[in-house]
Amino acid sequence: MASAIFTDCSSATKAVAMTSARLPPLSKLKDQQGAVISPRSISFRPNSRSYSLLNTVLYTTRAMASSASLSPVVMAEDSSAKIIDGKLTAKQIRDEIAIEISRMKESIGVVPGLAVILVGDRKDSATYVRNKKKACETVGIKSFEVSLPEDCSEQEVLTYISKFNDDPSVNGILVQLPLPSHMNEQNILNAVCIEKDVDGFHPLNIGRLAMRGRDPLFVPCTPKGCIELLHRYGVEIRGKRAVVIGRSNIVGMPAAMLLQREDATVTIIHSRTKNAEEITRQADIVIAAVGQANMVKGSWLKPGAVVIDVGINPVEDSSSPRGYRLVGDVCYEEACRVASAITPVPGGVGPMTIAMLLSNTLDSAKRVHNFK
Amino acid sequence: MASAIFTDCSSATKAVAMTSARLPPLSKLKDQQGAVISPRSISFRPNSRSYSLLNTVLYTTRAMASSASLSPVVMAEDSSAKIIDGKLTAKQIRDEIAIEISRMKESIGVVPGLAVILVGDRKDSATYVRNKKKACETVGIKSFEVSLPEDCSEQEVLTYISKFNDDPSVNGILVQLPLPSHMNEQNILNAVCIEKDVDGFHPLNIGRLAMRGRDPLFVPCTPKGCIELLHRYGVEIRGKRAVVIGRSNIVGMPAAMLLQREDATVTIIHSRTKNAEEITRQADIVIAAVGQANMVKGSWLKPGAVVIDVGINPVEDSSSPRGYRLVGDVCYEEACRVASAITPVPGGVGPMTIAMLLSNTLDSAKRVHNFK
Repeated sequence: MASAIFTDCSSATKAVAMTSARLPPLSKLKDQQGAVISPRSISFRPNSRSYSLLNTVLYTTRAMASSASLSPVVMAEDSSAKIIDGKLTAKQIRDEIAIEISRMKESIGVVPGLAVILVGDRKDSATYVRNKKKACETVGIKSFEVSLPEDCSEQEVLTYISKFNDDPSVNGILVQLPLPSHMNEQNILNAVCIEKDVDGFHPLNIGRLAMRGRDPLFVPCTPKGCIELLHRYGVEIRGKRAVVIGRSNIVGMPAAMLLQREDATVTIIHSRTKNAEEITRQADIVIAAVGQANMVKGSWLKPGAVVIDVGINPVEDSSSPRGYRLVGDVCYEEACRVASAITPVPGGVGPMTIAMLLSNTLDSAKRVHNFK
Repeated sequence: MASAIFTDCSSATKAVAMTSARLPPLSKLKDQQGAVISPRSISFRPNSRSYSLLNTVLYTTRAMASSASLSPVVMAEDSSAKIIDGKLTAKQIRDEIAIEISRMKESIGVVPGLAVILVGDRKDSATYVRNKKKACETVGIKSFEVSLPEDCSEQEVLTYISKFNDDPSVNGILVQLPLPSHMNEQNILNAVCIEKDVDGFHPLNIGRLAMRGRDPLFVPCTPKGCIELLHRYGVEIRGKRAVVIGRSNIVGMPAAMLLQREDATVTIIHSRTKNAEEITRQADIVIAAVGQANMVKGSWLKPGAVVIDVGINPVEDSSSPRGYRLVGDVCYEEACRVASAITPVPGGVGPMTIAMLLSNTLDSAKRVHNFK
């Protein structure tokens, strides 16, 4: 996915890079055309297979937390692009989660817990972990953090995982990636019990996500955030052509599965695809998750398409104090003239990822306590 | 999928209906244009992710079993359709498997074992089980069969599964579906240990199939058979547009995953797809697995496309002694004038399914005995 220095390989992929970027969010530039104030009109689809799955928390609390509402996207060819504001939506979701957690605490006296294991002293990883911890605090999730030295043994990590697996106050376990090279990542990730795999990367979760009639315990956070944005902006998915650019295990592949569960007709484009532009131009919904700055041009888009840009790529910018700025996989300025709606970078999918992590952790706690 | 009366819901879906049909195989009608005699030129792709997975057995024995060879398919627009002869290919694979089993028996003194559990007295199920048993015998796989009465308890079935799970001479376990309505199918299927899930339907297997860098223990038999036909007829998959029509857990979805693992650009078409014809017409490879007689017309196909027809549908035919004949999801006569290659129905994918079941059982035995 996105360039390494900005990639949080645990669930909160990219979110921090986005939130920590000092550049003004591009959405600010578009406020006049933008989203956000008018009443929402999400089209509920109670029969949709993924509905109950994705929205256990998110929609049940909707009525309670309507401080900010999102206007629906209309796929009209003549509209200029509406900004799909991930930052605002993530805030709204965090508020909803906080309300749910309060209700849970009052009703049954428990709060969800999230454990994060950090190995080594990578600065970016430390930042990601710090941000997750902070996000937990804002909604009332108890966070547990273990920091282990770079040269610790795989067994030590496994011991902590085992401890958290057994700890009923921990509902989600994240191992911050990348791990030191002397460790077997797959062994370690497989040790997290599936009931606490809030990243949703366990093959059993992915298998259930792929299969009709099955439901995963958790949906991976970034693709879940993409679909949640579509839902909250009232984008119809059923029967639409969707193109997912990128086939990673953490974004592209599960995003495609989610779209298909909602009855889109999905094509995944990847590095071996020969006519990516032509195929993308057929799509009503484009999710770009390939990690190449500005790869998707305006000419790639069908007029009126809805664009979810997961990429976050640093490009040189001498006018920035940092010497770079962050851009998506989609050429934003061009896309704005063609698409009906688009997520900015930063401020689009990024903030949603941590919000979905919190949502998964709450779901996990609700499930284990049978709290509705 | 295909109409119920012909559907074997266990791994050998449709195979028996095809082989038991009394109609002459349609491939006979096409012998002049047909496949089969000239030297094979499979394009080996050692780097393909699914290569080792799919072909552990099949390709290692290839040099030994070249009694019949298959000519490669050339995707030329001006050729009339070559028949992809599943019956012949399945025979060839069974021969290869038989050789491998002999080698295994001679080297380490063991033969693979396949257990089939049949509950109730459905005639079609009994036929499917009988055919599996017969197929096992032809290659030297030891078959174990348990027949339980319709009114037996779920616990009785689970007890047998547990017994077979523990029995080292059993390498694969099939529970013939459908089960009586008083049983929980998912409970029962989940009880089969994943190392013996030769059907490949366990969500953990499906998850691994979906994920890059992971390999399933078993690939579901019918989609595996589809891809094997493409391989054996030298159809290039990498970089090609592929359309899978149908998104069932047992055929469409895993077939799409397999194509994507081999670097095709895949679109799954389903009942909610609005412009199925137009999308299908873009495909170099079409796998039709939707269970609707003659749904895919010649006009749906790109000239030169390769068509794998998984459907098997009975249509009335007063000239047949049975009063019906079997047709695929693709209008065969029309497709023959447009496609570069096509599987007939019957005699295409059907016979491959049981061959793949045998292959999975052999793979399982090799794995447990670490036999290369």
